[in-house]
Amino acid sequence: MPDPSLLEAFPTPTDTPLAIEHVAEEFTSVCPVTGHPDFGEVRILFEPRPGSGGGVCVELRSLKLYLQSFRNEGAYYEAVTGLIRDDLAALMAPVWMRVTTVWRGRGGIRSTVTADTGNPPWR
Amino acid sequence: MPDPSLLEAFPTPTDTPLAIEHVAEEFTSVCPVTGHPDFGEVRILFEPRPGSGGGVCVELRSLKLYLQSFRNEGAYYEAVTGLIRDDLAALMAPVWMRVTTVWRGRGGIRSTVTADTGNPPWR
Amino acid sequence: MPDPSLLEAFPTPTDTPLAIEHVAEEFTSVCPVTGHPDFGEVRILFEPRPGSGGGVCVELRSLKLYLQSFRNEGAYYEAVTGLIRDDLAALMAPVWMRVTTVWRGRGGIRSTVTADTGNPPWR
Amino acid sequence: MPDPSLLEAFPTPTDTPLAIEHVAEEFTSVCPVTGHPDFGEVRILFEPRPGSGGGVCVELRSLKLYLQSFRNEGAYYEAVTGLIRDDLAALMAPVWMRVTTVWRGRGGIRSTVTADTGNPPWR
Amino acid sequence: MPDPSLLEAFPTPTDTPLAIEHVAEEFTSVCPVTGHPDFGEVRILFEPRPGSGGGVCVELRSLKLYLQSFRNEGAYYEAVTGLIRDDLAALMAPVWMRVTTVWRGRGGIRSTVTADTGNPPWR
Amino acid sequence: MPDPSLLEAFPTPTDTPLAIEHVAEEFTSVCPVTGHPDFGEVRILFEPRPGSGGGVCVELRSLKLYLQSFRNEGAYYEAVTGLIRDDLAALMAPVWMRVTTVWRGRGGIRSTVTADTGNPPWR
Amino acid sequence: MPDPSLLEAFPTPTDTPLAIEHVAEEFTSVCPVTGHPDFGEVRILFEPRPGSGGGVCVELRSLKLYLQSFRNEGAYYEAVTGLIRDDLAALMAPVWMRVTTVWRGRGGIRSTVTADTGNPPWR
Amino acid sequence: MPDPSLLEAFPTPTDTPLAIEHVAEEFTSVCPVTGHPDFGEVRILFEPRPGSGGGVCVELRSLKLYLQSFRNEGAYYEAVTGLIRDDLAALMAPVWMRVTTVWRGRGGIRSTVTADTGNPPWR
Amino acid sequence: MPDPSLLEAFPTPTDTPLAIEHVAEEFTSVCPVTGHPDFGEVRILFEPRPGSGGGVCVELRSLKLYLQSFRNEGAYYEAVTGLIRDDLAALMAPVWMRVTTVWRGRGGIRSTVTADTGNPPWR
Amino acid sequence: MPDPSLLEAFPTPTDTPLAIEHVAEEFTSVCPVTGHPDFGEVRILFEPRPGSGGGVCVELRSLKLYLQSFRNEGAYYEAVTGLIRDDLAALMAPVWMRVTTVWRGRGGIRSTVTADTGNPPWR
Repeated sequence: MPDPSLLEAFPTPTDTPLAIEHVAEEFTSVCPVTGHPDFGEVRILFEPRPGSGGGVCVELRSLKLYLQSFRNEGAYYEAVTGLIRDDLAALMAPVWMRVTTVWRGRGGIRSTVTADTGNPPWR
Repeated sequence: MPDPSLLEAFPTPTDTPLAIEHVAEEFTSVCPVTGHPDFGEVRILFEPRPGSGGGVCVELRSLKLYLQSFRNEGAYYEAVTGLIRDDLAALMAPVWMRVTTVWRGRGGIRSTVTADTGNPPWR
Repeated sequence: MPDPSLLEAFPTPTDTPLAIEHVAEEFTSVCPVTGHPDFGEVRILFEPRPGSGGGVCVELRSLKLYLQSFRNEGAYYEAVTGLIRDDLAALMAPVWMRVTTVWRGRGGIRSTVTADTGNPPWR
Repeated sequence: MPDPSLLEAFPTPTDTPLAIEHVAEEFTSVCPVTGHPDFGEVRILFEPRPGSGGGVCVELRSLKLYLQSFRNEGAYYEAVTGLIRDDLAALMAPVWMRVTTVWRGRGGIRSTVTADTGNPPWR
Repeated sequence: MPDPSLLEAFPTPTDTPLAIEHVAEEFTSVCPVTGHPDFGEVRILFEPRPGSGGGVCVELRSLKLYLQSFRNEGAYYEAVTGLIRDDLAALMAPVWMRVTTVWRGRGGIRSTVTADTGNPPWR
Repeated sequence: MPDPSLLEAFPTPTDTPLAIEHVAEEFTSVCPVTGHPDFGEVRILFEPRPGSGGGVCVELRSLKLYLQSFRNEGAYYEAVTGLIRDDLAALMAPVWMRVTTVWRGRGGIRSTVTADTGNPPWR
Repeated sequence: MPDPSLLEAFPTPTDTPLAIEHVAEEFTSVCPVTGHPDFGEVRILFEPRPGSGGGVCVELRSLKLYLQSFRNEGAYYEAVTGLIRDDLAALMAPVWMRVTTVWRGRGGIRSTVTADTGNPPWR
Repeated sequence: MPDPSLLEAFPTPTDTPLAIEHVAEEFTSVCPVTGHPDFGEVRILFEPRPGSGGGVCVELRSLKLYLQSFRNEGAYYEAVTGLIRDDLAALMAPVWMRVTTVWRGRGGIRSTVTADTGNPPWR
Repeated sequence: MPDPSLLEAFPTPTDTPLAIEHVAEEFTSVCPVTGHPDFGEVRILFEPRPGSGGGVCVELRSLKLYLQSFRNEGAYYEAVTGLIRDDLAALMAPVWMRVTTVWRGRGGIRSTVTADTGNPPWR
Repeated sequence: MPDPSLLEAFPTPTDTPLAIEHVAEEFTSVCPVTGHPDFGEVRILFEPRPGSGGGVCVELRSLKLYLQSFRNEGAYYEAVTGLIRDDLAALMAPVWMRVTTVWRGRGGIRSTVTADTGNPPWR
């Protein structure tokens, strides 16, 4: 079951802007309708708030454990994407963030879902 | 025969913006002039309206069946693209949508046709 | 319905050995269980018998029409592969032939089926 | 000799905007200086005028024959590109069009030439 | 827990030799030491015994379910590979079979494990 | 019209064995049935006889001109391949030679034709 | 230990604008938590100030030695990226600069960190 | 020694805008410090002035000879790039031009240098 | 300093043959002449002896630590390759083993070194 | 002018067999007919004789300087390949060696020349 309490953060190490992207290539959850596993990739791109203003960044190992907590969860693509955005936004309150999930697909259709917080200036 | 009644939708699961792309790699219809089959890929990129405002998203399995209904239909590239746009726009009334069909081509010429609804901000 | 009567041949234009490979990238048939379409590629590699000995080669346009005749046929991967081998062997009686079908797959599993006539010396 | 009379058009099948790209991968003409053949690719991207306003689209088979008519013509890269733009613009009067020729090159230098009509909004 | 009772077979549809390869790109199990998930690909290549001699082929959907049964199993790479070989050999008694597992790796080391039955003539 | 008198040769510069491959990526001829152009690649791999034994190698510029002489010739794939083999074998009498033509294809079918002289030990 | 005194510069050789990118593909430092090595790529893109205004460019060999000085340093991704930006900005005071570090990742998560000086107009 | 007198031009064949890119993949000069050869690629992208206004385009064979004249010249990356820009701008006075040199690199660092004339609207 | 005492093994889990390949993509040592770091990839392919005969396999985490112990060691390509072969052969006494090191190279020359134990039947 | 006196060797560091491949990606010489530069890649694959038997290996930096000595030499592809083989064979007297030169080509024809010493068991 997705567990945001697994997420940890550390203070942003600088006050000048950083953009950080984490790409988790080995994500799996379960289709809530068929019970078959879904496989995909989760991409998280964000600008943390400055360290002197209390800004924080998600810690990598905690992010890995959090993403693993979806392993046996039945969840739609859209719900997975929105939940990751909401949990990370609650943790970091970033200047902006883009969460993208890329799914290997079913029945010959591949899907990608993107959810933003703030206004990402980058592609 | 293309059958939009096959399409089903479900409520958008969030009120914050999502962008969703479905890529159907195995599309085939028939050339209305020569009767030979055409093969291509259909890409559907859209932003659904928010769930609290009655927004809906196309359901994936119904999309697959709808696209399969073109299998023995004689239709020009441009007509196929426009029809998919129209049927999906009627189903979802999305904030914006881009439908792109990519055809393997005939006689050494590959073709791509793009039809929009609204004003897609993305490439 | 697969129709071997569509196949035509022409005399091998030489008596010194040739190896010929035709790759049809746009093959589709129907899964006999689910009724969903299957998409794949058909590769036909053979050495025709010499022209002076009555050897013949399959004519390309007739091969295209023959392969198109599987379009709405329900057939297993293995049956499709074996049938193409048998029909082409009956047409050409080649020195050797290898028919390989490469399927895009279902449920995350891609499949390849190979059926030989004679003893192909090549990979 | 390039022959624009080979080009044919059909009415744009819709009044909502379409963008169409045709890519002819097998183009050849002759270098007017050396007499050696040049090989390249011709990309034609355009938005046709709406059908209700008399807009038309180039027909694919006629486009193929037109491009084949350059086969034994001696013409510079820039002249070929400009001529295709002019002939297609005369045929379709599109909202905008971009013609790009990509040449395999000579003496270790590859070249690309682009000629526009109107103001293509896309890359 | 890996469950070979999920596997089903159907009679080999021909008496002339076939070579069949199934590639499951979405395989996951669990590292028995760390409890972290492992992700990989399973490749199964075999020649079934002829149909008239009682030969059988593994059915694709049952293979998918069987491979999914490793999802929450703690197992070493080598054990997973050997078990799949043993279970499929028990089901089909193929003329020969090669099972290869390709793992995404841990700590910068990717691994591949191959287990044969009989003497595969192919690579 | 293919013109073998364009071919020139120079003495093999060594008595120890050499293997030489020339790949002409820009080959075109004409389909004798439809009159449409065919595009492909010609690969010529051979071992020349030793220089002290009178062995010769084809000169590159003459090979280019010879291949260009097929430009407006109507010829089947198999005939083109066999003719190039015969003309080069007559010129060089190599220890062995393999001529392979790779065609971009028509109607979704790509073809490759291989003709040998002697017994090429290499792939 | 990262040593900015290793960095050397030379006067910008022109007064018209230049954009320069150096990509060091072989970067390694050490994870400060686990002590395991991290491997990645460092990309440095900048516009130097004009030579007549005292502008300077980093010298390549000195850049290599500077980047090698991180070899046995324990440092977080974000700290490495920020430090390189700060040291190079102190050396060159460029019009703008973008430093990007691309890490091979740990536990299935790849990371990229970007730190700017000024306002890079390019991607 | 780089020799701009090798460069020749011809009148722009049209008054409607063209964008032309020449990519020379086989460029070499010599490092002025170590005397070792540098290898790279030179990309030249420009819009010529209209023919009726006296606009000219660089002639390809003369460009090849000009670039070959750097072969044994000791020159820094930045100087090479600036010199090519200056020589071509003096020849053509283009509306805009971008000269990019891409170097294979030394000591694990690859470099790219870009010099513009005017304001290139394209990437 | 390379430390074979870091290597650990576990009993081969089967008596039927296995082939195992481990690819460590992040290897670094130091050039004994220049002191500059070398970067490369280490590939280890082997068949362990059967478990019932006392056969063992190298444990992955211990292999990672062993390979990391070369980090600040000055060693030639050939010496690194031979030492890894010798240390792993001493640990496992495999039926056969192939150790291949692939180096990113220096001065435009990439190198690969291969050292075998026994007679690897595979490529 | 090619200068074999630049080549240096060091004793083979082991008595068990090694296979070593050096790939020089940045090779250039001059066409003896046209005076235009040729660009290519030189691949040298060999098994040195054992160290205890007086076997030696070519030293990398000396190999680089030797290959650079062809820079302004007019030489045919076949002569370059044969000369490198002869010079390296004279230096090392390897168990076997394969020298392959891969040329970017002229006039749309790419060439590869291979010269062996002994009997290379590998491809």
